[in-house]
Amino acid sequence: MPEIVFLPSGKACSAASGTSLQEAAERAGVNIAFPCAGKGACGKCLVKIERGAVDFDDNGKLSWELLNEGFVLACRSRVGSGDAEILIPFSLSEEQGKFSDALARTGIDERLYPSAEDISPLAVCEKITVAAAEPLDGLGDFDRFSQAAKKRLGVESVDVPLEVLQRLPDALRQNGGQIYVWHTTGNNRAYIADIAAERPETEYGLAVDIGTTTVAVALVDCARAKIADTVTRYNEQLERGADVISRISYAKNPERVKELQSRVVSTINLSIGELCGRNGHIPHECIRNVTVAANTTMTQLFMGVNPQYIRLEPYTPAVMGVPCYSAGALGLSACPSALVWIAPNVGSYVGGDITAGLLCTDFAAGTDELCLFIDVGTNGEIVLGNDDFLLSCACSAGPAFEGGGIEMGMRASAGAIERVEIDPETHKAAYAVIGGGKPLGICGSGLISLVAELYRRGVIDQRGEMDRTGKFPQVAVNGKNARYYVVPPEEGNTGVYISENDIDNFIRAKAAIFSACVTMLNSVELDFDSVTKFYIAGGFGRYINIEKSQVLGLLPLLSEESFCHVGNSSLTGAFMALTSKKHRDKIEALASRITYIDLSTEPKYMDEYVAAMFIPHTDQKLFPA
Amino acid sequence: MPEIVFLPSGKACSAASGTSLQEAAERAGVNIAFPCAGKGACGKCLVKIERGAVDFDDNGKLSWELLNEGFVLACRSRVGSGDAEILIPFSLSEEQGKFSDALARTGIDERLYPSAEDISPLAVCEKITVAAAEPLDGLGDFDRFSQAAKKRLGVESVDVPLEVLQRLPDALRQNGGQIYVWHTTGNNRAYIADIAAERPETEYGLAVDIGTTTVAVALVDCARAKIADTVTRYNEQLERGADVISRISYAKNPERVKELQSRVVSTINLSIGELCGRNGHIPHECIRNVTVAANTTMTQLFMGVNPQYIRLEPYTPAVMGVPCYSAGALGLSACPSALVWIAPNVGSYVGGDITAGLLCTDFAAGTDELCLFIDVGTNGEIVLGNDDFLLSCACSAGPAFEGGGIEMGMRASAGAIERVEIDPETHKAAYAVIGGGKPLGICGSGLISLVAELYRRGVIDQRGEMDRTGKFPQVAVNGKNARYYVVPPEEGNTGVYISENDIDNFIRAKAAIFSACVTMLNSVELDFDSVTKFYIAGGFGRYINIEKSQVLGLLPLLSEESFCHVGNSSLTGAFMALTSKKHRDKIEALASRITYIDLSTEPKYMDEYVAAMFIPHTDQKLFPA
Repeated sequence: MPEIVFLPSGKACSAASGTSLQEAAERAGVNIAFPCAGKGACGKCLVKIERGAVDFDDNGKLSWELLNEGFVLACRSRVGSGDAEILIPFSLSEEQGKFSDALARTGIDERLYPSAEDISPLAVCEKITVAAAEPLDGLGDFDRFSQAAKKRLGVESVDVPLEVLQRLPDALRQNGGQIYVWHTTGNNRAYIADIAAERPETEYGLAVDIGTTTVAVALVDCARAKIADTVTRYNEQLERGADVISRISYAKNPERVKELQSRVVSTINLSIGELCGRNGHIPHECIRNVTVAANTTMTQLFMGVNPQYIRLEPYTPAVMGVPCYSAGALGLSACPSALVWIAPNVGSYVGGDITAGLLCTDFAAGTDELCLFIDVGTNGEIVLGNDDFLLSCACSAGPAFEGGGIEMGMRASAGAIERVEIDPETHKAAYAVIGGGKPLGICGSGLISLVAELYRRGVIDQRGEMDRTGKFPQVAVNGKNARYYVVPPEEGNTGVYISENDIDNFIRAKAAIFSACVTMLNSVELDFDSVTKFYIAGGFGRYINIEKSQVLGLLPLLSEESFCHVGNSSLTGAFMALTSKKHRDKIEALASRITYIDLSTEPKYMDEYVAAMFIPHTDQKLFPA
Repeated sequence: MPEIVFLPSGKACSAASGTSLQEAAERAGVNIAFPCAGKGACGKCLVKIERGAVDFDDNGKLSWELLNEGFVLACRSRVGSGDAEILIPFSLSEEQGKFSDALARTGIDERLYPSAEDISPLAVCEKITVAAAEPLDGLGDFDRFSQAAKKRLGVESVDVPLEVLQRLPDALRQNGGQIYVWHTTGNNRAYIADIAAERPETEYGLAVDIGTTTVAVALVDCARAKIADTVTRYNEQLERGADVISRISYAKNPERVKELQSRVVSTINLSIGELCGRNGHIPHECIRNVTVAANTTMTQLFMGVNPQYIRLEPYTPAVMGVPCYSAGALGLSACPSALVWIAPNVGSYVGGDITAGLLCTDFAAGTDELCLFIDVGTNGEIVLGNDDFLLSCACSAGPAFEGGGIEMGMRASAGAIERVEIDPETHKAAYAVIGGGKPLGICGSGLISLVAELYRRGVIDQRGEMDRTGKFPQVAVNGKNARYYVVPPEEGNTGVYISENDIDNFIRAKAAIFSACVTMLNSVELDFDSVTKFYIAGGFGRYINIEKSQVLGLLPLLSEESFCHVGNSSLTGAFMALTSKKHRDKIEALASRITYIDLSTEPKYMDEYVAAMFIPHTDQKLFPA
């Protein structure tokens, strides 16, 4: 049987001829990302045949040089008749180490922290004194505890989960009937999330942002409303599809829903382990408050709920307002009976990450002035409004801004070109690389920078077509396609380039977002002039250059001070919801006020989209020279 | 390393010299019961060295002949320097096969079945019509379902467990929004135990009686209030102690509480598997109603709650009224979110088995006439009263009636002598053996029968001392102890005998029960003449001979028709509670009315006990000749 060795790790397996490389990699315990779930569309499972050969019928969108150089897509290739050595160029695990540093910059603005009087997590701690047992008083520990808790908390009934009851007899006797109770009380009922004979010095909680690509977990000192530490790692679901649509496709049966649920829960639990470990070995069961913000699909997959109906007419999510379930039921390694609060969704493609994110904006303050909020990833989500009205919609930007669908695109990690300037004389590109090392590809901010420079220097025209006159020696033409080399190819190196196809994908992405904003404004008979604040959320917001985005018609021509980066507002919102009931109530109130618009049914959206497929725009009034 | 072979199975293991036989047996996968948890007190782990030798310092209470014949206690013996073959005379697994047949006789009186109009299990099924999703109606599946359920069930709030939510999107679409809902509704809230697009033909439920020794599970056709099938098996906790006190001793840390919980849950799940399998392969998740009745210790261990405080002053159980938890939380293989109803306890040693059992008596009917209810196992539990008052107490009878603490005692299974008559001339015993085979020991009913005959024929006197004049050739004297041979010893066979020690244990047991009844009556200034009905519950009740029990002073001299066997009233009560809210309410009402008396603090109990340590009694007025 052929022996397949994966490099650089050297992990190997024997596999029969015809076995897919995907399967062989899994068997060898090697981590290859399959973001498009094996459709050959994303090119992210690129591997290089270093020795031997593999079989394939069709290598998807792989470019001619890469094929010539021995690259194949692992998802489309099979073990051949003999041994092979296969190099995985950028493995998820390698990238991961550098990743959390990059994300660490996405901190939370201290001014957004709740004030001391607002601090009120979901489970609050109260000391209760329970009378000692008397001989033959006809009362069990549970009865005496319930009586005392009802009286102390002023409720008619008390829910005691089994895990709490199991520890009640000991806890009641450890401190002479003095017992600390973490409870969530409302509607005349108290839910007892936990009990302990001693109160810990610090009350920790977790705020979780489940992104389609990355999962950020913040360890929060609840009593002081401070983030103690944060860990961000790739969502382990990534191997089953890069975007929500691929994940939904993958989750076609209950076993796969369970698998995706396990993957995201495992991602979070790894981060919990890391956070608890490096912050004084906090026992996981002492984490008694957890909040989660995620888009609608991620919310459903985290809860193990079939997401198919999100993308089937009439596009109905399973939950808008999400009931609280226990950490134990959800599989989180925290206090098992602690309730997990999940931010509400407002539609199939506008989820809890957006409603939580609004907390970081003037929307939450109840402003009269018109605000626009965009969160751009594979999907763009937009919220428009003020204290009078709130509209939201989602548009499919495609993965260009995250480095997807771009031949040499990559995420904003080490090796990514993040900024480009093109010399007006030589037309050579100068560039900055994340981490300072060898350039390996182009990330979202690099793409915006590069396309704007190409346009400014006349390498591309308003339609994104490259100059083929030979004026630019960096442009190489092959048949219908042309490309511009940011890093020229050298021996043993393909260089780094952008192709006309890439530019086309970029223009589609920027057009989708811009036209969505215009459509939203038009629907209430307003235009960009009315917009006072333009919030940009996500890593996208942090890294893009506003002036260059305006050159390209991605962002409107508002004054620089109108734009406001709110960073990972989903995580920030989850953090704020964790520490304060006022904020949880506010998110719920905002969510209930939002009207969700389906752009695919808005007749004018397609016209606006086509008009925006131009640099900067066909409507010159929007972008006067 | 010595090789240890266990017979008759031939299972073997290698074990270092000095390894305990208990450990060697576990390693070989051989089931030996250690009811006293290795104290050498009960003699139930008797094994015979067929070849080779083992080491031991002290073999507990093992008799001289048994030691001479090569018997040792597995709990007190260690692997020696060489190989050994060890015979397990009566293994739990052998006994088990015959056991459920024996228990099958303990049926439920059909007259006790709830009438059709009373049928109301905890989770009742209702069909709900949920409106179809509309585009952009702002409602998720959960929201539409909750609205419909609140309206249909007339409640303000709806609890949907995560397992139910996970299946909601599919279930709502399978039958055009028609959905069957199993709900438990009260206090303006509906708990949704399960949902399904189709309603099954039969609704099954489970009634469970967790005894210290055996666990009985009845599969119930809830809609018709009929028991479809029953399985009884030994409680797997038996290997960790025969009685509640040994179990509590064993459960000295959380890991051991978990272990005992797993053992009893595993016992129940095995029975569920058997019942579902042989009744048309019922899917376990379609079992949406479960009720459990158990003594206080068994209740706590089933729930995984530390039972230590049951036997520490002031003897407080963890729970009197037991909140409902889900089958999933308890580990039962049934519908995971189905609620399990557990019968309430009234004291440390009077538990849900007794409160459920009272449903089978006139106590439940609200009688003016004085009733006495006894359930005799290792503990005797007694309830006295009528519609005016209810008293209960427990007394420690010791395991004599279950064949424990008796040198040749055994449970009422194949090989047990269950009835004895002694010839007035030859003084030889004629006997009946369960299963009709070779006599192996004496069970509880055999013991009563035998001791009564020994007393009647003058072999023993009123103090239980054997005649040592030589008049009875069946009596063998060795030092201070004497024994009567029911089956004479032959070559290669020790025979079956009863010793003076055994008779002493028997007298203590009967005295404990009788004096408890007298003390209860005296406490309300009544006597046996006032008792109209005398209920006897448990296997004990089914097999004892009333006339012989009266000869011995175990039962009072009431007319034969005053006595009423109620069989496994705990299982019957659980069954009735399963099918009807009226019965659940009744059990709870009875439990709340019962006053629990602690005999150890009743000054007159010890006097009564000493007075009863005589055959039939020192007070001749109670048993006139």
